[in-house]
Amino acid sequence: MYVERIERVKTYLLGKKIDALLVSNFYNILYLTGFKTLTTDEREAFVLITQNKLYLFSDERYLSKNYKLPTTNYELRLIEPKRGLLVHLKEIVGKEKIKTLGFEAEDLKYYEHFHISQQLAETKLMPTDRTLVKLREIKDEREIALIEKACKITDKCLEDTSKIVKVGVSEKELAFKLEVWLREKGYDLAFDPIVAVDENSAIAHYNTKTGEGIVKKNSVILVDFGVKYKDYLSDITRMIFFGKPTDGITVAYENLLTAQKKTIEKVTVSRKLREPDLFCRETLTARGYPNYPHSTGHGVGLEIHEYPKVSFTSEDDKKIGQVITIEPGVYFSGKWGMRIEDTVVIDDDLTARTLTKYPKEIQII
Amino acid sequence: MYVERIERVKTYLLGKKIDALLVSNFYNILYLTGFKTLTTDEREAFVLITQNKLYLFSDERYLSKNYKLPTTNYELRLIEPKRGLLVHLKEIVGKEKIKTLGFEAEDLKYYEHFHISQQLAETKLMPTDRTLVKLREIKDEREIALIEKACKITDKCLEDTSKIVKVGVSEKELAFKLEVWLREKGYDLAFDPIVAVDENSAIAHYNTKTGEGIVKKNSVILVDFGVKYKDYLSDITRMIFFGKPTDGITVAYENLLTAQKKTIEKVTVSRKLREPDLFCRETLTARGYPNYPHSTGHGVGLEIHEYPKVSFTSEDDKKIGQVITIEPGVYFSGKWGMRIEDTVVIDDDLTARTLTKYPKEIQII
Repeated sequence: MYVERIERVKTYLLGKKIDALLVSNFYNILYLTGFKTLTTDEREAFVLITQNKLYLFSDERYLSKNYKLPTTNYELRLIEPKRGLLVHLKEIVGKEKIKTLGFEAEDLKYYEHFHISQQLAETKLMPTDRTLVKLREIKDEREIALIEKACKITDKCLEDTSKIVKVGVSEKELAFKLEVWLREKGYDLAFDPIVAVDENSAIAHYNTKTGEGIVKKNSVILVDFGVKYKDYLSDITRMIFFGKPTDGITVAYENLLTAQKKTIEKVTVSRKLREPDLFCRETLTARGYPNYPHSTGHGVGLEIHEYPKVSFTSEDDKKIGQVITIEPGVYFSGKWGMRIEDTVVIDDDLTARTLTKYPKEIQII
Repeated sequence: MYVERIERVKTYLLGKKIDALLVSNFYNILYLTGFKTLTTDEREAFVLITQNKLYLFSDERYLSKNYKLPTTNYELRLIEPKRGLLVHLKEIVGKEKIKTLGFEAEDLKYYEHFHISQQLAETKLMPTDRTLVKLREIKDEREIALIEKACKITDKCLEDTSKIVKVGVSEKELAFKLEVWLREKGYDLAFDPIVAVDENSAIAHYNTKTGEGIVKKNSVILVDFGVKYKDYLSDITRMIFFGKPTDGITVAYENLLTAQKKTIEKVTVSRKLREPDLFCRETLTARGYPNYPHSTGHGVGLEIHEYPKVSFTSEDDKKIGQVITIEPGVYFSGKWGMRIEDTVVIDDDLTARTLTKYPKEIQII
């Protein structure tokens, strides 16, 4: 699996006439080697891919004597206080006669690039754009199986946790219960859950951690969360109505649900992923609902927001093996909002198959 | 408070003859404006500081009609699909006649810089280095009070949670109990806790999430965790011995404890922060213990690792208002390891005062 991914990078480099690629992004390193550090953003590791070899650079906290990568043809290089990445790079560039060195232009910091360019004065640094994130866009069978499992856990977690909804329960408590349910079983959250009650549900990306909402009689409750299972993520949003909602809310929900289901069907017949976005917006605004202030969806995998884009500005084609969300919403500022979201995979016949299976029929408790 | 911080940036810019500074780092934006987005790394906000004004750029999920910043002289600018940061920047640069635009070279990505430079062809882009993180290094009274409170919560959390240590408890369970204790009270973890038992404690930055350790009779248990209280962090490490440790372990602990206490005293009489690092390493290696594979400490504040550096390569002076950790360790690979860590503030008289007060005497339960 890793060997194959690395080979794909090598083929890309040959095509672009780039001798080597420096990989700095945490998730791209994980994708290529299975290796991960404790933090995603503290630059504790780098990878260099040449036609001969893969080099992994990290410090002795991670690269103990017995450490092995689950791939072939690699070399581990220890980052030490006086022997950092730049020293190693210079050595390898000399030894392997690297004339052009690609780097991840959307990830490498300005100063990191600057310091490398100072150190490797005779090497041409070549920005590469989204090379690895575009490879990651297409999931293999194992990845889809992991996301599918994450979705199954999501469904069960929501089923169990929604049972504790009652008058007086806070948004924070509900969010915490989702997390405890997962963590006790050894799973993790994919991101900080959004639990938003009544007027808070009208804020498309409400911050539950700083909010004060509490379930009241006849509350509208939005729950947006996901599960991390063996590094792969799911994403779901469901509405819970505590007590009978008003007719306006019920009708809006039915319209939103119909639009969301039709949008998933629309994915099946679309070639570009902006088509379902445009379709869904048109469907809802034609019914008199306000346009929603976010994309209709996004790719999901090792990260909660990755390629492909599912928005009206997206240039991305629909492809076999993509995993995306479909999550339109209806929001009335200061009053209430609702969103229905599923994680969906593009199957071998280019149809969209929904992986999150928690019921979407109006849920009144 | 924010006004004062922004004024300090303006003074810096005047001195450097830079007309405006683009701030991209999540924590620096939080420090300057109190504003924060849901994610730290998805570039959901930017700040631009000119001599006239502070501009905050974010999208409508965050900048609702009623949104107000806790400062003066600012303008909110909405990032929209077809009207992004670059469009706003171009407009403001024209209006305010900005000739030189500073940016955070250690934070801005290569491509972000590239796209800005393409768009602002007549503006000189000036890399600035650690400007804001160096301001953040010196904490004001309010910040120290928040860190002090985080440390108090840390002490109490550790006191309560250490009571559940018994044979058969896993590292993961202990880590989770620390978190549950905090979250139930509305607090947060500062970072993923390290709970490491026996041979795992010899790995300086052990990953509890992927580990399998379980407390046994006579186990050595390392607990390294911190609390986030109103965005400010604490950091502590303590050892728990379950049953009577061997003489070698007891002696090592006493030596490490003496060294750690003396190193905190050494901070008081040091001018450079590499001095306590060198002192502590020498003290322990002179006693025959192996050198530890990490810094003696680091700054703590909005981030768990920030300035000043407390390592033998550090150039940083000791200054009033710094908050740092002192955390030497003794590690025997494959056997056991230990680390003792406190969060320490530099007071007005330049002495070091320990904020984490959980007892350090050998703790056998």
